[in-house]
Amino acid sequence: MLKFGRDDRLNHVINLRSNKRIEAIEITKEIKEVISKSNFSSGVAFIYSPHTTSGIMINESYDPSVAEDINSFLSKLAPKDRDYKHLEGNSDAHIKSSIIGPSKTIIIENEKLVLGTWQGIFFMEFDGPRSRNVYVKLIKS
Amino acid sequence: MLKFGRDDRLNHVINLRSNKRIEAIEITKEIKEVISKSNFSSGVAFIYSPHTTSGIMINESYDPSVAEDINSFLSKLAPKDRDYKHLEGNSDAHIKSSIIGPSKTIIIENEKLVLGTWQGIFFMEFDGPRSRNVYVKLIKS
Amino acid sequence: MLKFGRDDRLNHVINLRSNKRIEAIEITKEIKEVISKSNFSSGVAFIYSPHTTSGIMINESYDPSVAEDINSFLSKLAPKDRDYKHLEGNSDAHIKSSIIGPSKTIIIENEKLVLGTWQGIFFMEFDGPRSRNVYVKLIKS
Repeated sequence: MLKFGRDDRLNHVINLRSNKRIEAIEITKEIKEVISKSNFSSGVAFIYSPHTTSGIMINESYDPSVAEDINSFLSKLAPKDRDYKHLEGNSDAHIKSSIIGPSKTIIIENEKLVLGTWQGIFFMEFDGPRSRNVYVKLIKS
Repeated sequence: MLKFGRDDRLNHVINLRSNKRIEAIEITKEIKEVISKSNFSSGVAFIYSPHTTSGIMINESYDPSVAEDINSFLSKLAPKDRDYKHLEGNSDAHIKSSIIGPSKTIIIENEKLVLGTWQGIFFMEFDGPRSRNVYVKLIKS
Repeated sequence: MLKFGRDDRLNHVINLRSNKRIEAIEITKEIKEVISKSNFSSGVAFIYSPHTTSGIMINESYDPSVAEDINSFLSKLAPKDRDYKHLEGNSDAHIKSSIIGPSKTIIIENEKLVLGTWQGIFFMEFDGPRSRNVYVKLIKS
């Protein structure tokens, strides 16, 4: 599938591991490292989760309780046990994934991510603990 | 508006028809055909629904009951009949459309869509049956 | 941060002011002006809110009650007062922001936005009144 070699300036994979079933893992630093090592000046970073029970979210990272409130909200909204048809027992995680979405895009200018003052980037785990990947594709403007 | 001729390698329209009011229609095969006939090697595919009562979703396609669980969830969340202001009687469909979103973006590498093992692409109908269009724009990286 | 000068054809900032706590502000005209003054023929417009208590939405703009129904729905779904952990009292606005999402992307063809007949673009304020910015980045295809 994806063979993102070191020589490919535009394609990157971030590996991470979640420790709980539901967890917001901040990846802002990792994404910034991708930009800075890519020598990429202007365009957008496209950040993609290839999984069906996780998502990518941009929200406040200064106070970690914001992401916790979002996860508590989602857990009440789509409880784990309900009369779901899918027999694997993780339909709630698929639902949360589709609400948050599998990707986000962020502007890059002057070799820097253009995030708002309070914004951070999160990998949202909804069916952990698991090993996960995040793909980053840089697109010139 | 859009005049996507055959000669235009980067712009494509997929026509489809929904058969129920609420329906998840998988379009992974159609999107893959667009990529392969475009001779497009590296970038992203931007997949867009120009309608206000539908959406584009990426989630598990291996077991169709996942998309059915998501639609059941959305129907309980935003029931058709409530004290809505909009008089056309389909406010629930507009709400579902904004939760799922009108578009998704997917990486293309080596002339192939980079989807996760279990991921498929769905046109989400929330106010059918109708004739619908999906626009696909290929963007070089 | 962003220093989008007049000479930069691809980067634009739209300033706006919300007047209520929760408000859908249509910005379709402003985005169209950005495209037309940029002399930009083909690609996508990436529209981004750098705030954590707002979002960008595409939905019906012909009848303003559609956006009002969506905001009423979101307000019932995530009420302002609940047992949230975040102490600023606006966790509901962060939640709404993550449901709607901080950005949308729209195709540009022949120097025009490719929107469906009924679609408009909205800045969704969830914790106003405030001064807000919307970034627009044009990306060639």
